[in-house]
Amino acid sequence: MLEAAIVGATGVVGQQFILALQGHPWFRISGLYATKRSAGKKYRDAITEGGVMRWYQDEPAKDEIMEMKVRDVEKLDPRDYDLIFTGIESEFARELEPRLAKRRPVISTASAFRYEDDVPILIPGVNDAHARLIEVQRERRGWDGFIVPIPNCTTTGLVVSMKPIYDSFGIELVIMTSMQAVSGAGRRGGVLALDIIDNVIPYIPKEEEKVEAESRKILGKYEGGRIIPAEFGVSCTCTRVNVRDGHTEAVYLSLKKRASVDEVKEAMREFAPKLYSIGLPSAPRETIVVLEDEARPQPRLDRDTQGGMATVVGRIREDKALKNGIKYVLVSHNTKMGAAKGAVLVAELLSKLGYIKRP
Amino acid sequence: MLEAAIVGATGVVGQQFILALQGHPWFRISGLYATKRSAGKKYRDAITEGGVMRWYQDEPAKDEIMEMKVRDVEKLDPRDYDLIFTGIESEFARELEPRLAKRRPVISTASAFRYEDDVPILIPGVNDAHARLIEVQRERRGWDGFIVPIPNCTTTGLVVSMKPIYDSFGIELVIMTSMQAVSGAGRRGGVLALDIIDNVIPYIPKEEEKVEAESRKILGKYEGGRIIPAEFGVSCTCTRVNVRDGHTEAVYLSLKKRASVDEVKEAMREFAPKLYSIGLPSAPRETIVVLEDEARPQPRLDRDTQGGMATVVGRIREDKALKNGIKYVLVSHNTKMGAAKGAVLVAELLSKLGYIKRP
Amino acid sequence: MLEAAIVGATGVVGQQFILALQGHPWFRISGLYATKRSAGKKYRDAITEGGVMRWYQDEPAKDEIMEMKVRDVEKLDPRDYDLIFTGIESEFARELEPRLAKRRPVISTASAFRYEDDVPILIPGVNDAHARLIEVQRERRGWDGFIVPIPNCTTTGLVVSMKPIYDSFGIELVIMTSMQAVSGAGRRGGVLALDIIDNVIPYIPKEEEKVEAESRKILGKYEGGRIIPAEFGVSCTCTRVNVRDGHTEAVYLSLKKRASVDEVKEAMREFAPKLYSIGLPSAPRETIVVLEDEARPQPRLDRDTQGGMATVVGRIREDKALKNGIKYVLVSHNTKMGAAKGAVLVAELLSKLGYIKRP
Amino acid sequence: MLEAAIVGATGVVGQQFILALQGHPWFRISGLYATKRSAGKKYRDAITEGGVMRWYQDEPAKDEIMEMKVRDVEKLDPRDYDLIFTGIESEFARELEPRLAKRRPVISTASAFRYEDDVPILIPGVNDAHARLIEVQRERRGWDGFIVPIPNCTTTGLVVSMKPIYDSFGIELVIMTSMQAVSGAGRRGGVLALDIIDNVIPYIPKEEEKVEAESRKILGKYEGGRIIPAEFGVSCTCTRVNVRDGHTEAVYLSLKKRASVDEVKEAMREFAPKLYSIGLPSAPRETIVVLEDEARPQPRLDRDTQGGMATVVGRIREDKALKNGIKYVLVSHNTKMGAAKGAVLVAELLSKLGYIKRP
Repeated sequence: MLEAAIVGATGVVGQQFILALQGHPWFRISGLYATKRSAGKKYRDAITEGGVMRWYQDEPAKDEIMEMKVRDVEKLDPRDYDLIFTGIESEFARELEPRLAKRRPVISTASAFRYEDDVPILIPGVNDAHARLIEVQRERRGWDGFIVPIPNCTTTGLVVSMKPIYDSFGIELVIMTSMQAVSGAGRRGGVLALDIIDNVIPYIPKEEEKVEAESRKILGKYEGGRIIPAEFGVSCTCTRVNVRDGHTEAVYLSLKKRASVDEVKEAMREFAPKLYSIGLPSAPRETIVVLEDEARPQPRLDRDTQGGMATVVGRIREDKALKNGIKYVLVSHNTKMGAAKGAVLVAELLSKLGYIKRP
Repeated sequence: MLEAAIVGATGVVGQQFILALQGHPWFRISGLYATKRSAGKKYRDAITEGGVMRWYQDEPAKDEIMEMKVRDVEKLDPRDYDLIFTGIESEFARELEPRLAKRRPVISTASAFRYEDDVPILIPGVNDAHARLIEVQRERRGWDGFIVPIPNCTTTGLVVSMKPIYDSFGIELVIMTSMQAVSGAGRRGGVLALDIIDNVIPYIPKEEEKVEAESRKILGKYEGGRIIPAEFGVSCTCTRVNVRDGHTEAVYLSLKKRASVDEVKEAMREFAPKLYSIGLPSAPRETIVVLEDEARPQPRLDRDTQGGMATVVGRIREDKALKNGIKYVLVSHNTKMGAAKGAVLVAELLSKLGYIKRP
Repeated sequence: MLEAAIVGATGVVGQQFILALQGHPWFRISGLYATKRSAGKKYRDAITEGGVMRWYQDEPAKDEIMEMKVRDVEKLDPRDYDLIFTGIESEFARELEPRLAKRRPVISTASAFRYEDDVPILIPGVNDAHARLIEVQRERRGWDGFIVPIPNCTTTGLVVSMKPIYDSFGIELVIMTSMQAVSGAGRRGGVLALDIIDNVIPYIPKEEEKVEAESRKILGKYEGGRIIPAEFGVSCTCTRVNVRDGHTEAVYLSLKKRASVDEVKEAMREFAPKLYSIGLPSAPRETIVVLEDEARPQPRLDRDTQGGMATVVGRIREDKALKNGIKYVLVSHNTKMGAAKGAVLVAELLSKLGYIKRP
Repeated sequence: MLEAAIVGATGVVGQQFILALQGHPWFRISGLYATKRSAGKKYRDAITEGGVMRWYQDEPAKDEIMEMKVRDVEKLDPRDYDLIFTGIESEFARELEPRLAKRRPVISTASAFRYEDDVPILIPGVNDAHARLIEVQRERRGWDGFIVPIPNCTTTGLVVSMKPIYDSFGIELVIMTSMQAVSGAGRRGGVLALDIIDNVIPYIPKEEEKVEAESRKILGKYEGGRIIPAEFGVSCTCTRVNVRDGHTEAVYLSLKKRASVDEVKEAMREFAPKLYSIGLPSAPRETIVVLEDEARPQPRLDRDTQGGMATVVGRIREDKALKNGIKYVLVSHNTKMGAAKGAVLVAELLSKLGYIKRP
């Protein structure tokens, strides 16, 4: 068992980390960290306001977690743990994570370090080879640990769906319009009901830039100590719709090599079980699930497929307007595979690869 | 005053025709037609079921309309009117409209004849020149009247927004993802709440094909008695979202000639007042309204701009992934400009052009 | 194992029956019946339209069910089964169910026979003694079988929550305002999204009358071969809100004997495990779950408590305006405990009591 | 023209005050006040964040308002104005309003002073006689001005609908369940989409207590320098539903004197035009609008009746469970009659009555 700390434990992402880790076969939740305000309280009390427990997940936390003391993140000594999960704002991550990474592996949901040259953005099953960049990062920065962030939740489903196509046929261009769930905006500064009832909000600050940069990096090639980004063009419009969980994305691809709809499905289906086969506890049985019903995927019906860890793809069809065009629709769970559970999957991979271990 | 009949008067589109025509300066509602079941009843009674009046519009119909007798469409003699508006299912339109068009102009919201060679799909201000195809239609079919359909409601906003760009810079390719309102599906067989709550439905039967065919035809060229469709590629994904009225569309264009964002806005702004200047009563002051707020257009906030007759465009930005790429988001009111009010605007144009007149 | 038939198997309630019965330890699905249109087809094909399978449940049906032949309900010989579940419209039930009941037990979700003197409306754990009315029904009608309907889905949660209070303190008056989910209206003639977005519909045809009549009957006393309805006054306002599943009800009670909030909670908690203890497979561990969080129960968070079979009660507080007043809010799952799963629970009880058995 | 200041001008209620007052025939917006952060900026700039104008109303503010300087509320000298409208949090109101009221009339949307003995809560047309309490307030506190708050938005519609019944038949008891719109919670700390999608929240902090206290006070009697609260019992459950604007309330009344449904309607219809007849510019033509369609009132369809200033009542029916029982459903616009526009109506009444005038 590896001892794990969760930083930002009282927040929504922190709560998701608790769910993803409690009962985990490889990792044990050994420390819960938050700001000074919560420090010293039992977890149960730290998330209680005005007598009401602000536990925002559908499943409950175990009693033993509820009884754990929350500690002050300022006093977190990384050497007390084998790895650290962070679910915090990007500004704070920029400051805190290097201090922790000096000593121990940090798996982060924040965007703070995603775009640094020596930091891989990992999606297990998609770009495992990028893990080698950790060695470069350690050496360059003189760290014992490292920082590995997961992608933005909108990037994840897109890149997973592109991966088998990219490998088999090459990609010249991807155009993507997202219809994103409100849970992606979190609680602090979250989407107000009065803004989204009977409405679509066609803009999410910085989202499009993130998807564009991250998708090229993740599908890029590790070579000589750095990642050479993939060279396809990416263009996105990210919108918010009146859905609670689950991002829907309409994707248009121009491939390097012509591929039929059946060949694309075949490539996805072949790719689907590979990750699972290497034996990571949080891995979905199928990384991609292809549906034939033309009215699917739908976020309410498909977001929880395989514990919210699969990317569900449907409406795969030829795009006659694009050169070697293929288009489809996908649904990906933004707060499961796209957040804490996805980060735990990354930790599992890095543990398997030997990057995370008892010191 | 021209005498107008409304066919399908008790349905939702029929009700919209009543609102668009009551108090109209050029057209008078002189006949209301529906199936035998309603025939002989006052309009008020014909739309009343179980004691409740099924008037689905926000504004009321005038008392004089409510008191009008509804007549049996089977007995409609077109010669009793100067023009006829139809708001009926496509299958029924295919059978009924030719009988009416033999004698009188028929302005239709149905798709039945949209794709025939001698039938123009008109959007005033966009392709007025296509009206000349009416002469071909009359001659070829030996009709005194004619059939002119309006486009599918999803096509309308798209083509309006493309028109000034097409004229100034040319278009190679358009990719469009729509987030469509539930009112577009009507009442019979309409979208059930239980299917769209907390959900997106990524498929609308036949919608994508319609948009693809219609946009090329409408932006095509009238030449030698026929329309030569525009040659750009079109690719769409049409989805249904939890919005009552107003279709939102994310549009990506590859232009023939490079244009800056400012040049595109300039072209739209120059185009905006042209239609209004010719003096049609239902024309919006501006055909296109360009917004600078990056979080707009939003359907709830923008659909009713200028009586629901304007196409509202925002987030115009460069698309670096496409050759000479431009992308933007638009909102267009699917049951106003996209339906009966749009059809009345067509009748106004054809009246101005002399195609509709007292016999 | 008892052999069960499902009538109306292709409809939404029929699908719920399939889920509630597949893998059931006591009942086996031995026949699926629908109208002639579906007869002779595999179930899978009978629910497929235009290539798309219209299976409206979150969980899938087992393959063996999908492969079963659907048969014509007109040809259903009740003697081929040990019991029959019906999920059909009330008019059709009125005609069909007596024919079936002549031979075999019929458990019905329809309202057709609920208000007949010799027909009990059963909620296991609440009025099990009413089962004895079955004997009267059989004798009076000369039937081998019988008809037992479940209550209207809005009545169920109300009566369950009232039961322990009624027994301990007596009830003079109940006032109830419901906020009902759209799934309660079903699919045929269901609530349209365009009617409920950004809206409340303050009327549900016949619903208030049903709740008023049924609650008095269910809490009534079986005596001398008939049910003497409870004597409290009942007044309801039933509304439809923009929620998919789960009815929320605000309840105000005037008790015969004064009771503190704690005494009411105590009565509920004592009542909660009784039904479970008699060992029916579909029974919730607790018939009533009392929550202390003042912002609960909420339909999305609480409807699925204990498989959707528990009535979740919160905000129990004194009502100073009513004599011995108590008020609270409840959530009850309208398509689980309130429909097919609730009907299966009734069959389990009647089986336990010996009313349903191998002939 | 009376010179008016708006305090809290940049907030949502402040924006509603601007809309309610711009172009007003009696009052001129002469001062806009906010916290120091906004002071010195043009209004347009004060509500602009990150380049986007945070104007949350459907109608625009006039350019002359947009160009006005916002001033620091700490430096507001009430003697510069004839009256002051405040749209601020209750804690801040408690501190600020007495300072202003020392010199000038203050019309407030805050609850801070509603429950003080010498402070009337006014609804024009309902309890105009309570205005006389202003004289007591002035004398007791030694103020030149005074504070008059409007009621909580949920109280307003309820009390308006009760008034004609109370006057004609007397009321013993009122039970009310509200289904409130999300706009009632405002923007700061407003209802998050992820909490209300597919949900009902059955609790609104302090709301029920407010409605109970305010309704008795407003329908009370002014006598000998004080208000003797009405003596009926009141019991409420206040819930939040997925509606943007417009509170829906299910009301049950026990009357002192038996009244038929027709008599109740008659009393409401007689009452409806009275307020309008005294000539206040913001008064609705009918204070109460009675609908006969049993599926009405609905918030989306009825909230804007007469500019959002009317209380729309429907489903009036006998309540057989209550002594002399009557029940009905009402819709009232929470951010129009229930907020700033309602406060302006109060100022109009007080101006008419001579309590607000040029010094």
